[in-house]
Amino acid sequence: MPTVPIESAALRGVRGSTIRDLLAVTEQPGVLSLAGGLPATDLIPVDRIADAAARMIGQPNALQYTTSRGVSLCRDVVASVEGVDPHRILLTHGSQQALSLLAQALVDPGDVVVVDDPVYVGALQAFQCVRAEIVALPITSDGTNVGALSRLLERGVRPRIVHTVSNFHNPSGATASTATRNSLADLAETYGFWIVEDDPYGRLSFDGASPTPIPGERTIRLGSASKTLAPALRVGWLNATPAVVDLVERLKQSADLCGSTLNQLMVADLLSDTTWFDAHIDMIASAYAFRAHALTSALDDELGDSVEYTSPSGGMFCWVRLPGVDTSELLSVALSYGVAFVPGSAFAVDADLTDSARLSFATLQPDTLREAVRRLRTAIDDAAELRESRPTSGA
Amino acid sequence: MPTVPIESAALRGVRGSTIRDLLAVTEQPGVLSLAGGLPATDLIPVDRIADAAARMIGQPNALQYTTSRGVSLCRDVVASVEGVDPHRILLTHGSQQALSLLAQALVDPGDVVVVDDPVYVGALQAFQCVRAEIVALPITSDGTNVGALSRLLERGVRPRIVHTVSNFHNPSGATASTATRNSLADLAETYGFWIVEDDPYGRLSFDGASPTPIPGERTIRLGSASKTLAPALRVGWLNATPAVVDLVERLKQSADLCGSTLNQLMVADLLSDTTWFDAHIDMIASAYAFRAHALTSALDDELGDSVEYTSPSGGMFCWVRLPGVDTSELLSVALSYGVAFVPGSAFAVDADLTDSARLSFATLQPDTLREAVRRLRTAIDDAAELRESRPTSGA
Repeated sequence: MPTVPIESAALRGVRGSTIRDLLAVTEQPGVLSLAGGLPATDLIPVDRIADAAARMIGQPNALQYTTSRGVSLCRDVVASVEGVDPHRILLTHGSQQALSLLAQALVDPGDVVVVDDPVYVGALQAFQCVRAEIVALPITSDGTNVGALSRLLERGVRPRIVHTVSNFHNPSGATASTATRNSLADLAETYGFWIVEDDPYGRLSFDGASPTPIPGERTIRLGSASKTLAPALRVGWLNATPAVVDLVERLKQSADLCGSTLNQLMVADLLSDTTWFDAHIDMIASAYAFRAHALTSALDDELGDSVEYTSPSGGMFCWVRLPGVDTSELLSVALSYGVAFVPGSAFAVDADLTDSARLSFATLQPDTLREAVRRLRTAIDDAAELRESRPTSGA
Repeated sequence: MPTVPIESAALRGVRGSTIRDLLAVTEQPGVLSLAGGLPATDLIPVDRIADAAARMIGQPNALQYTTSRGVSLCRDVVASVEGVDPHRILLTHGSQQALSLLAQALVDPGDVVVVDDPVYVGALQAFQCVRAEIVALPITSDGTNVGALSRLLERGVRPRIVHTVSNFHNPSGATASTATRNSLADLAETYGFWIVEDDPYGRLSFDGASPTPIPGERTIRLGSASKTLAPALRVGWLNATPAVVDLVERLKQSADLCGSTLNQLMVADLLSDTTWFDAHIDMIASAYAFRAHALTSALDDELGDSVEYTSPSGGMFCWVRLPGVDTSELLSVALSYGVAFVPGSAFAVDADLTDSARLSFATLQPDTLREAVRRLRTAIDDAAELRESRPTSGA
């Protein structure tokens, strides 16, 4: 075995996932986890998916290889969902694969990629893998910080890609306003960068209306069946100008030849059953809205003025600030009280997010969410006492 | 839209797949295709797979995300198939993904990667994507050319990886001898390179005995369910020293988070049913042996001394030489007679394989294989006439 590092230089630049390491600790019996990034298992339509599997497995070639672009039937259905021509659609192994293939297809080492701060860590890793120079702009409540982006562009910085989770942002919860979307599209046209609009949560809007996509030919939209149907289908997609689709198709071939024909046929079956699918989405969004409300009510009741949070309007996450609290320190105390969350610093690029945290309301029932917040409050009180009793010169 | 190339430098270095472009032409009605790289659709155990799907879909968390390493149950079953500890196993989206992740994990731009010539094009593309310097050594009937490799190493060349399809090589049909395997392992130990033993076909041995894997801690074995169960499961695996597994795991996370829990549970169910699986493998291998025999008998009958071929001892391919024939030119004539194959040049790195071709016997029935070879002979005769009648100064 070699004594020198065996990994490639590319891999040495990739941040390990604090979150993954954390999940190993938090997913212990007795711990109520607000830390996960999973959709609710109890809302996955198992019977309808089993039915799709049974029906599709007998289709001709359902178990063979498919094209790198994906099964035509599924591309057609996704195109119809996205309201575009099927030539703009390429199916990926979850939308994370679309991110990593786009990074490889479009970014050379040293190219600038702009991300939100806090960032979706999966996007950060995909861009780090191709040795992009990451520039992180503090996200606003209206989405990507187009003011800071404009100043960057005026200073002569020329990003290849600006990435954002446009709807119900992971982790900050923000949704890009119409003004932000239009500004982004205008800047992309003027300065020649690609917008990667990462949108796994758009359909999970609590008021039932999905926000309008970012306009323009320089927008590459990513979608996924993971949060609306089931993660294990591993079907995501990319909706982009055909020149980009062609490039990604070439890379997809060398990355893994193609997706699963069966799984893509299942997604085609499920998404094209629009009456069922729309009702299913309503059901998930209502359940998440109910859980989000339970979480924020509990935050109000238990923490009052000592917490600030963005009221979730969709998706799975609530971003909180606990002024004066170091949430990384808080976590170990919280775990001892049986509650887990992800500290803000896990999503930070340059921003100081020491006092912030991401709470997921997706997977716990309302009563359990309230109990989790009670435990969190006890942990906060305890951590405060600990802090006060600690000698200032101590570790 | 930009007028400069939009693709990254990495992508510009990747050879487009002649084979994929070709398949679009060859898969026309009325064309008997010896060109495909697919396993036989009629031998895929649809009912048993449907049964696995129905059973596994109801398992707890079968439709949730899994770990980047893969579902424990499936890793345990694969470890048992490979005869190793589960810590050595990481599940991938087909073994092509293992190739591309290994290339990213272990190879820096300019690092030397040694491949066989002719090469499995998917491996070539994966290494080109990370801008490896490719050195191709003419494969022998005993597998990788260890003589040429030794000379290369003695000249001071230090490859990071030596890649080979060790059993029933795609496309050449060769299987590495025991001497080749031992030499490779010794050289890897001495010179510190990794052997990637790409082994999708090992179980498809016509005499029932799978060759022994390449020994040593520097061997990374890749396996797949695509040729033994079904490509659409998209389950492959990597069997390597834990340090390599750890690196690939980090990349797998940024590549696509994880594989499909459901598909991996299905593979666990199918592979652990050893009585059924062994009988199933016997059935496929016998059918392929029968088809291979039909193909080579037809080659003998129709082409006699004008063809040389390696008698297949397993797998899906027969590599033929047609001395004096340019197989790329032959292909267009052959297509007009309703038969397709892949010209040798599609697999060539440096070697002149103009007079060679890969014939797949996997997907056609014996009678159809015989008819395909009859058409091929007519095309060869026709192409020869065409050549003789053509003015030497012509195009």
